[in-house]
Amino acid sequence: MPDESGGDVAPGLMTEYLTDAWGFFIRSAKQFEKFRSPYQAVEVHDTAHFGKLFRLDGHFMTSEMDEFFYHENLVHMSALTHPSPERALIIGGGDGGSAEELLKHPSIRSIVLCEIDLAVVDIARKYLQSVHKGALDDGRLELRIGDGFAHVRESEDQYDLIVLDLTDPGGPSESLYTPDFYRACALRLKPVGAMTLHIASPIAHGERIRKCLANLRSAFPLVTPYLTSVPLYGGMWMMACVSQTLDPKSLSAREIDRRIALRALPQLKYYNGDVHRAALALPNFVRELVG
Amino acid sequence: MPDESGGDVAPGLMTEYLTDAWGFFIRSAKQFEKFRSPYQAVEVHDTAHFGKLFRLDGHFMTSEMDEFFYHENLVHMSALTHPSPERALIIGGGDGGSAEELLKHPSIRSIVLCEIDLAVVDIARKYLQSVHKGALDDGRLELRIGDGFAHVRESEDQYDLIVLDLTDPGGPSESLYTPDFYRACALRLKPVGAMTLHIASPIAHGERIRKCLANLRSAFPLVTPYLTSVPLYGGMWMMACVSQTLDPKSLSAREIDRRIALRALPQLKYYNGDVHRAALALPNFVRELVG
Repeated sequence: MPDESGGDVAPGLMTEYLTDAWGFFIRSAKQFEKFRSPYQAVEVHDTAHFGKLFRLDGHFMTSEMDEFFYHENLVHMSALTHPSPERALIIGGGDGGSAEELLKHPSIRSIVLCEIDLAVVDIARKYLQSVHKGALDDGRLELRIGDGFAHVRESEDQYDLIVLDLTDPGGPSESLYTPDFYRACALRLKPVGAMTLHIASPIAHGERIRKCLANLRSAFPLVTPYLTSVPLYGGMWMMACVSQTLDPKSLSAREIDRRIALRALPQLKYYNGDVHRAALALPNFVRELVG
Repeated sequence: MPDESGGDVAPGLMTEYLTDAWGFFIRSAKQFEKFRSPYQAVEVHDTAHFGKLFRLDGHFMTSEMDEFFYHENLVHMSALTHPSPERALIIGGGDGGSAEELLKHPSIRSIVLCEIDLAVVDIARKYLQSVHKGALDDGRLELRIGDGFAHVRESEDQYDLIVLDLTDPGGPSESLYTPDFYRACALRLKPVGAMTLHIASPIAHGERIRKCLANLRSAFPLVTPYLTSVPLYGGMWMMACVSQTLDPKSLSAREIDRRIALRALPQLKYYNGDVHRAALALPNFVRELVG
């Protein structure tokens, strides 16, 4: 049902569908940008509650107000589980929000950010300063505009952390949800390393979750699904942390709080030790879904 | 903005606003009922994802698919924290969903359900069997059609558990969010007793949460806010457990699981020991909000 305009239900109401018959909307107060890049339809709007809001192919990507729900939970689950992450790879993430969270960890020495669409980076630089806070121009960050799959396949680098900060399957990121891609990522991850990604809504997208977890399990011995809330995606949202050896469940709330203090992570609006443990707690219907 | 029709954004799209400029919608596949009771506008619809869905004054109340998110989290936080609840009072809750969860606890000997609007009970009996599962006709349940405030003020009974299963402030439940009402509830609660209620979205309704928690704190020494996800209310949702003595934080995940097993609670789709602890974990921005 969603097309390039997202199937907006009424003029000025930007709409996101969770199923054919269930969705949500945010009113655009002002449209700053609307154009087609070589890869996708790009929009930036101003909104009353979410501040500046960014869409791709009619889907909500991030916003000034709620970006911390998504980026903190996507990044710190693995970055805090890792004892001392130095080298990180972000696939997608051209808005710079994930890079900004990674750079909060003082051990990080280099980040490769591989984004297919330069337009996303340009838009972030122009409108989303409060999301990336300058991370896109940090000296530790190397920006590569290109295909993420090709980078992972051709690179010989090894990373402590990989963050898949992708659009949903269906658009340009389709191939980045396959077992082949996950196996290629596994080769780029150090033995003491972890990759995180967002998956889908356990309420609306059960089948997508089952399939994605099966693909991940074909490439990684440790696949840890976890839950958070992302307002811009429609509420309860599943992510996963995958690794050869690192298990986020092995860390207590106290140990996570200790690491946050030791690393002096600035400006965490969401993440703390209790939240780390809470994200790993799955309701019974989700336990059944993830098998 | 929402009026009796909920300010539906397009024909057949039932709409709920979280703020003036942010909301969600569910498509009605069929309208079973739409009428005005003496208290409010009542609707029942069939829907593709939520099954039968029930609205009051244009606001989503409950649905067959997602009722367990709300009812399990509203009831079991206090019912499992209580060592052996026997007598319970529900204010509102005419759909029977909270009563059904309470009756899962084998120690429960009596429930008084005080619902102001007989139409809600009639609708539940006719359409929402899968929500109440016969609880409305259970021999342990006494149904009183009347004003909840009057019952609490005039009753001399004392309860182990009180559940406020109310519509949002603004409609007939307006007076049930006041310090006076909470103080009257405190008098009806045994010293080893707890009351739970749902409050609002910590993302959309910060001011309502601040005010409600202040009112609760004027009547109860222990006020424990907790979080869950209610799809039909728009995602992350705050509830609270209040008491003279009972602190849900004092129970480990293992102890909650032990009680669930001892009491042989049937058909829990959401609640378990990990979820109990997770609900009590508050993200940093929520810690700041609840003070």
